[in-house]
Amino acid sequence: MALLVMKFGGTSVADLDRIRIVAAHVKREIDAGNQCAVVVSAMGGQTDQLVELTKQAAPLHDAREYDVVVSSGEQVTSGLLSIVLQSMGVPARSWQGWQIPVKTSDAHGAALITGIETQELKNRLGRGEVAVVPGFQGIGPDNRITTLGRGGSDTSAVALAAALGADRCDIYTDVDGIYTADPRVVPHARRLDKISYEEMLETASLGAKVLQTRSVQLAMLHQVRLLVRSSFDPPDQVRGETGGAGTLVCDEDELVEQQVVSGIAYTKDEAKVTLVRVEDKPGVAARVFGPLAEANINVDMIVQNVSDDGRTTDLTFTVIAADLNRALEVLEKVKEDVGYRDLRGSTNVVKVSAIGVGMRSHAGVAARMFKALADKGINIEAISTSEIKISILIDAAYAELAVRTLHSLYGLDNA
Amino acid sequence: MALLVMKFGGTSVADLDRIRIVAAHVKREIDAGNQCAVVVSAMGGQTDQLVELTKQAAPLHDAREYDVVVSSGEQVTSGLLSIVLQSMGVPARSWQGWQIPVKTSDAHGAALITGIETQELKNRLGRGEVAVVPGFQGIGPDNRITTLGRGGSDTSAVALAAALGADRCDIYTDVDGIYTADPRVVPHARRLDKISYEEMLETASLGAKVLQTRSVQLAMLHQVRLLVRSSFDPPDQVRGETGGAGTLVCDEDELVEQQVVSGIAYTKDEAKVTLVRVEDKPGVAARVFGPLAEANINVDMIVQNVSDDGRTTDLTFTVIAADLNRALEVLEKVKEDVGYRDLRGSTNVVKVSAIGVGMRSHAGVAARMFKALADKGINIEAISTSEIKISILIDAAYAELAVRTLHSLYGLDNA
Repeated sequence: MALLVMKFGGTSVADLDRIRIVAAHVKREIDAGNQCAVVVSAMGGQTDQLVELTKQAAPLHDAREYDVVVSSGEQVTSGLLSIVLQSMGVPARSWQGWQIPVKTSDAHGAALITGIETQELKNRLGRGEVAVVPGFQGIGPDNRITTLGRGGSDTSAVALAAALGADRCDIYTDVDGIYTADPRVVPHARRLDKISYEEMLETASLGAKVLQTRSVQLAMLHQVRLLVRSSFDPPDQVRGETGGAGTLVCDEDELVEQQVVSGIAYTKDEAKVTLVRVEDKPGVAARVFGPLAEANINVDMIVQNVSDDGRTTDLTFTVIAADLNRALEVLEKVKEDVGYRDLRGSTNVVKVSAIGVGMRSHAGVAARMFKALADKGINIEAISTSEIKISILIDAAYAELAVRTLHSLYGLDNA
Repeated sequence: MALLVMKFGGTSVADLDRIRIVAAHVKREIDAGNQCAVVVSAMGGQTDQLVELTKQAAPLHDAREYDVVVSSGEQVTSGLLSIVLQSMGVPARSWQGWQIPVKTSDAHGAALITGIETQELKNRLGRGEVAVVPGFQGIGPDNRITTLGRGGSDTSAVALAAALGADRCDIYTDVDGIYTADPRVVPHARRLDKISYEEMLETASLGAKVLQTRSVQLAMLHQVRLLVRSSFDPPDQVRGETGGAGTLVCDEDELVEQQVVSGIAYTKDEAKVTLVRVEDKPGVAARVFGPLAEANINVDMIVQNVSDDGRTTDLTFTVIAADLNRALEVLEKVKEDVGYRDLRGSTNVVKVSAIGVGMRSHAGVAARMFKALADKGINIEAISTSEIKISILIDAAYAELAVRTLHSLYGLDNA
């Protein structure tokens, strides 16, 4: 018997047929003797429609009223799922963010959860009642509805699991787990039974849409064990945590066989910006990246070579492709202030990353990567590393070749 | 300077273009120095869609979850109108039922308002802020969302006006007032400048869709002056209470020229049921109408003739046409218990009514009606009267003729 938080996203609750399947998943867990709190998103597409309505109402609008409008999508799903569960004989009720309450900061539209009252929920879960909780929403210090920002339902689920002290938080989605690489690129890609929080975090930041970065951080902080699994699996099939379905995101200690590299990710839509012959003196970085931050342009990899003449250097960094033109405009304006000779931008690059907690204890992971890529004639334009990740920037034409090469190199190919 | 409650129904907030017109109506009142609380319905069709979703979720469903789902429509409109008002420079915020709070009974799906906290609203209205309140919703004693039943937004508006001590409650709708008869039937029909609560109540119960019966009762009880006016009028046009637009529903004392009859109404979709030769003994009526009430069949006019043989009588009553077959089934089952010889049902009837507070002090109103109809060869199948209303049941073929005849008879035709 376990206390579970089960989270279902927009495609899993897209219509009443899908909601009935969700209810069957919940019923299976209740029938198995578990206690269940269920976190739901808005029905697929609903949030986009509501967001569009607020935009049409006024391009610049009060975030507090935006929250009133947009949070209604999850409210509807919570009521409908409760009705369907009841019709299947499962006691259930919906709990809006303000009813529990899920207390948040007053940052409307992107609020942070500050606390969740759980005593009443726990009492009712203990009596076998399912709590159906709309994700994404809470209540601010001013007693007004808040939302957590897009994709916030993952965060709602993890925060609720932490507050309830849940044994596990099951994230039901449209894939059946985390893979060693994108199966569309690497046919030999394998589903991982387990992955550490740190690895998942790197994977999520690298654009894997399965989990929101913020929810993984929160899970790591509160040691909430996350199981990523498919809502499209037959609901009547009970599967163990690693019994052949889903990927458990957990503490490093739970990983039995630590692989050096657990997965290869790559992100398209990158753009590279190079400032040629920047003066190599203190404060230059601030004069470059300050104006970019003010323009809300996120900078990812930053590479600065050692100065060869002692006075100037080349500075390269990446932004998302959609921001390239704006970034170049911003940098044109500060040309005199920064002092560079030339400015170059190109969109024809991808970032390929190898991720694995095993890297920490294995030397030479990077060296092997560089050699393997060189053997295939792939030129590396930039490198950045963290403790558990190596990322390289390469010509987009070589993306798939690089991913497959690295997938083989680190022994990830399916037998 | 006045404190106004302004209520806009589903067609008046059907889309953002319409919501902008609503906002212009509100801005006009604010610019004129008035304080405004605005009650809004769900965007046209939205409530029907949400109700349909709950039905599809399960035919028999928890009314508390129904309320969670269905109340979201008004929530969306309240946020959107607030955004539009702000974009026009009018300070505004939305107030959900649970935030004010609008306290109701626990009869989910058909709750009664038990109290509205107004201190904070009053403070803000006094500072020129518009309060945008979703109609139809409240919060029950169990801290859960309630709804007032279909058309409940009128009731929300009147209750809020009563609680705020508003000078007037303006009901914006798709017609420009209350008419002496349906203008589609009687081309000479006139818009009334004023109508008494009692008359409006009778008119509303007779199927006029302009105002909910319940909201008129509430307005009468709390002496809330209602102005029925069109949201399709140009919003920049300021009109006095009886300055040529709208109909003021008010106390009888405010009516300057009391007419004997203020309007002629008629309802189609009636069906007539006759029990032939019912035993004329105590308790028979209960044995007839008890089972019908249990089957949720509303009975309207009831006519029982004096017994001519001292032992049996004929009993005639009306139900809505859609209920006729069910009514006949119910009565077949209790035939032995009630003891009647024959059971007859027909749908080919309409009810025509003349309404007017002046009837109280004028004798012979009914006699004139019966004579005028007889002159046209219209046979009266049943009659029922109240202090301010006479209703007759006639063959449906004569409906329009009867309405026009009575409209002329009581001097209601437009000059």
